[in-house]
Amino acid sequence: MGDVTEVGDVTGPGPGLAPGSPLGLHRVLEPAGVLPQAAWKLDPRPSLWPDEVRVAVERLNLDAASFRQLREATGGAAADMRAAVCTIVAERGKMQNPVTGSGGMLTGVVEEAGPESPLGLAPGDRIATLVSLSLTPLVITDGLAGWDGRSEQVPGRGHAILFGRSIATVLPPDLPGPLALAVLDVAGAPALTSRVVSRAAAGPGPSAPGTPDGPGAPGGPVVAIIGAGGKSGSLSAAAAREAGAGRVIGVVPAEAEGAALRAAGLVDEVVVADARDPVALAAAVRGAGGPAAVTVVCVDVPGCEGGAVLSTADGGTVVFFSMATSFTAAALGAEGVAADVTMLIGNGYVPGHAQLALDLVRREPGVRGLFEARISEETRGNRPGLEEK
Amino acid sequence: MGDVTEVGDVTGPGPGLAPGSPLGLHRVLEPAGVLPQAAWKLDPRPSLWPDEVRVAVERLNLDAASFRQLREATGGAAADMRAAVCTIVAERGKMQNPVTGSGGMLTGVVEEAGPESPLGLAPGDRIATLVSLSLTPLVITDGLAGWDGRSEQVPGRGHAILFGRSIATVLPPDLPGPLALAVLDVAGAPALTSRVVSRAAAGPGPSAPGTPDGPGAPGGPVVAIIGAGGKSGSLSAAAAREAGAGRVIGVVPAEAEGAALRAAGLVDEVVVADARDPVALAAAVRGAGGPAAVTVVCVDVPGCEGGAVLSTADGGTVVFFSMATSFTAAALGAEGVAADVTMLIGNGYVPGHAQLALDLVRREPGVRGLFEARISEETRGNRPGLEEK
Repeated sequence: MGDVTEVGDVTGPGPGLAPGSPLGLHRVLEPAGVLPQAAWKLDPRPSLWPDEVRVAVERLNLDAASFRQLREATGGAAADMRAAVCTIVAERGKMQNPVTGSGGMLTGVVEEAGPESPLGLAPGDRIATLVSLSLTPLVITDGLAGWDGRSEQVPGRGHAILFGRSIATVLPPDLPGPLALAVLDVAGAPALTSRVVSRAAAGPGPSAPGTPDGPGAPGGPVVAIIGAGGKSGSLSAAAAREAGAGRVIGVVPAEAEGAALRAAGLVDEVVVADARDPVALAAAVRGAGGPAAVTVVCVDVPGCEGGAVLSTADGGTVVFFSMATSFTAAALGAEGVAADVTMLIGNGYVPGHAQLALDLVRREPGVRGLFEARISEETRGNRPGLEEK
Repeated sequence: MGDVTEVGDVTGPGPGLAPGSPLGLHRVLEPAGVLPQAAWKLDPRPSLWPDEVRVAVERLNLDAASFRQLREATGGAAADMRAAVCTIVAERGKMQNPVTGSGGMLTGVVEEAGPESPLGLAPGDRIATLVSLSLTPLVITDGLAGWDGRSEQVPGRGHAILFGRSIATVLPPDLPGPLALAVLDVAGAPALTSRVVSRAAAGPGPSAPGTPDGPGAPGGPVVAIIGAGGKSGSLSAAAAREAGAGRVIGVVPAEAEGAALRAAGLVDEVVVADARDPVALAAAVRGAGGPAAVTVVCVDVPGCEGGAVLSTADGGTVVFFSMATSFTAAALGAEGVAADVTMLIGNGYVPGHAQLALDLVRREPGVRGLFEARISEETRGNRPGLEEK
């Protein structure tokens, strides 16, 4: 964070309101004292504290792990999906899936900005939130009547609240709204991948066989993207290449996705493997030029931790972006095979991440094509069995 | 891992046995194809595959998160605790708490070493396992009759199996068994802390205010240890200081522990705060010279992710060792407050970790004193409310 002196500071009471905090602590109803992300229930009232912003909701983008869980729990019928999301939002004052703990983000139009808001937003701005729905106060007023339950993108009406420390970005005028929303939802992944791969390329460590280490060396680090055909995966693959990867290996669950990824030209090798089968995954990555110096996990199903660790070279790094990752499975799995790998929790916030992700989509027709195909697939309700974020 | 070519390789069939793998895949009963750590059920039969080792169990060391969960679920009476552990081991063929996913480790005496075992162990060696119980085939034969249910250290009889890739260490002759077991159980924490703090001290990044960066600089990085009075915490505090920390801040949940930590002389500042209260924790760390360049989380209760992130400076690193850590809470919590922090999953394996931890206990009377007091407390069944690993 930028300035720790802000922790717990108050912005001063608004008319008739108790003091607030830039972290949104004043909106936490239960349990007391926790951050909004960890809270069970938030206060989503529309009146603003002085540093807050209220947004008229246009569209939610549920995160992939949450969407999958809801579809499996309800069977996926439109009425049941609508009821499931509306019930969560009504009970919790935010869209945080109680099973996965995850949320997503939203787009909308600024209705009102408090006089002390530091976000630089004005009424009428069309924005996307860059903080999770799991900590964003939210009210839905239309029962999500316009949603068929088949897409992660959920048209809806209502309002959401941004805190002083919440981040948001004005939607780019040159990209269609659903595309921009899908890109911004996973913007943390390419940004962190870029940082990790750049460091691996600059420093000592495992690299492509028979080639020198170092920035710009032809044998930069081998990078494996597990779930490279998906949204966070394709962006991360493009980011890895730009950051100096010597070889990018894209792993997908089925040959149809493999063909699309090959056609997109984002990776050096495409391999088809079930990421939940550790031995098969490690063998596939190895066969394609691995083990990897950097492995990036972008599939939204549980049970990929062991395979990711086994696919990574000694001294390498695994970045887990999937919200289906189990902390204990990763920690104990690596210990269990005596793997000296650095394992990162994929932080959704990296400075400059929104711009980096949008620029990748503008520059890389392959990434844009995969996004557009996926958005179109979602709209048709036609989703692969083992999907990516 | 040392050699990825081993993945899925077989060691050749033993007499009457199907081929095995150094990862122990041949012991996985269900579900098929996963690693032993991820399996629901293992085959703990005593006959050995050629690269395995069988150990006569003397003592289990349950990990802190698992012990706490069992005590809360059963009420803690001896008979109920024994029944809970024996049921898990009988059902799963290993001691992996189904709620926390975690295990612990064990000590025992080598009974038999297969002719192809690479571990260098011989019958009669008294050893500690350095892989988790959550992946170690185990049979308990005495109903844990010697355990009063009040200590994480569980005397018991039975056998355990080590795979070709499992790691173990011969117990040091100069340290009492229960002390060595407790130290080795958390040996990954000081080793990874040492590595992270060394890098922070060597590279650019947040450091103690008003002082230059760099190795050996008087103002090396500020390190906060959350749960510094516990086992992994006290070892990590000592490791941080040796690795070049400019200031070590120890956070403990209660004044009694604070006094003990102060007396041990391992940290520069002791602060008392509830790690589950993010604002209070961040304020306490800040008041003691923070925010931290490196924050190490060693408390075994859920809900410490937000406070750890808020206690860490921009560009800093949080290392999560607690098995009670939630992946999503950490990932979304950091994003939610726009915190640019690197978050590491504490890998229990770092090369040389056992030796490093044992040497710290030998060199630092303060660490040894805290361990001995805690082992004695556990034996008396007198445990603090918010305890550390």
